[in-house]
Amino acid sequence: MTTERPTALLFDVFGTVVDWRGSVMRDLQDFFEPRQISRDWETFALDWRALYQPAMEQVRSGARPYAILDILHRENLDELLRRYDIDGLDDRDRDQLTMLWHRLDPWPDSSAGLRRLRKAFWNAPVSNGNTALMINLARHGGFVWDTILGADTARNFKPRPEVYLKSATALGLPPAACMMVAAHNDDLTAAANLGFQTAFVCRPFEYGPKQTADTKADREWTHAVSSLTELADRLVGPEV
Amino acid sequence: MTTERPTALLFDVFGTVVDWRGSVMRDLQDFFEPRQISRDWETFALDWRALYQPAMEQVRSGARPYAILDILHRENLDELLRRYDIDGLDDRDRDQLTMLWHRLDPWPDSSAGLRRLRKAFWNAPVSNGNTALMINLARHGGFVWDTILGADTARNFKPRPEVYLKSATALGLPPAACMMVAAHNDDLTAAANLGFQTAFVCRPFEYGPKQTADTKADREWTHAVSSLTELADRLVGPEV
Repeated sequence: MTTERPTALLFDVFGTVVDWRGSVMRDLQDFFEPRQISRDWETFALDWRALYQPAMEQVRSGARPYAILDILHRENLDELLRRYDIDGLDDRDRDQLTMLWHRLDPWPDSSAGLRRLRKAFWNAPVSNGNTALMINLARHGGFVWDTILGADTARNFKPRPEVYLKSATALGLPPAACMMVAAHNDDLTAAANLGFQTAFVCRPFEYGPKQTADTKADREWTHAVSSLTELADRLVGPEV
Repeated sequence: MTTERPTALLFDVFGTVVDWRGSVMRDLQDFFEPRQISRDWETFALDWRALYQPAMEQVRSGARPYAILDILHRENLDELLRRYDIDGLDDRDRDQLTMLWHRLDPWPDSSAGLRRLRKAFWNAPVSNGNTALMINLARHGGFVWDTILGADTARNFKPRPEVYLKSATALGLPPAACMMVAAHNDDLTAAANLGFQTAFVCRPFEYGPKQTADTKADREWTHAVSSLTELADRLVGPEV
């Protein structure tokens, strides 16, 4: 395991930086309550997220050309509205719901942690979200990226190797000079296999109180922390 | 000419946001003076910049594959050192000189103007510089981009249409929702031909006191201003 100080920190975003589940639940509730439509919105949010992997897998496998996450979110919404027997939403409503994913709240430590980490490192998302979605999340959460990398850079989705590799190349850096920061062991495994440094951020409630996966580091990652402020304590030193 | 309010401002950088000539002159002087090598560093800086277009043209014409600007700057430096009869610089010296282009000073109004414009618009460079170069300039100048677009996004150089078009696409925006901001009429012509809004920023000393090109707007651009703070006055309103 290398101990070279990285130049860039590359962040997974959904679950690592932002609390998609809490935000999507809340926004679904806010949208449907005045329409007098009531369902289990927590389960709806988890189901929406669950359709994300098979949709991306179609692109990863080559079965369909690259489509940005906004499009996959919208297609999956259409499917879920049928499944939950919700009628009467027009295209504008559906677009509005899809845009929920552009205003997910950060975890309580994210904005402060990213601000401190950016003093010492280039910070960039390497997410499966598209660039516009990433810009909106950063503005909503009040944090700053040096640039946005990830799915749009490679026109494919993690954990395909080219997403990590093209992101490092865009920065002019070898993998060893980059540290992937994620709440998901499989994301870090893919990055580590390519020579990236790794930091696991434990987010045990990403999927709610019944979460069983990713409740701890599966391997000895370069770092394992419970928050981005703890990562800043480790890599930058305590805030003065 | 459209009057729709743009979502994104796309900035040319060399000459529009940063004073490459003044910075390169100064840094060449600082590098060579302790080595007791003296030349006309202003002319050297202008010559270095002059080799930029033919080098990019090789990529634009398809004669060579995409190479980031750092590589072109380095090749052109090697040629100029021969031309100026300067010997004895090893690879490390040459790399150090090439990196001058990563710490060009902004014009006096740039950082304040960009900060104010970013409150109302997405700000992104659409430059021929590579991503790492753009990150370093932003950190050196103390300004913030929402993301970095341009040459690396299209793997080609302006004024090729795909550089503008792929930059807008990365933001999920049609050209009409983007305003290209540049000190160069030809850059704005290329963007306007594709449907982008345009803002000309007059930088009459980019090439020094003898500059003859781009001393004024050649056409009726969407806006024509003398500084990025003036553009902020126009688009965002006066600072309170």
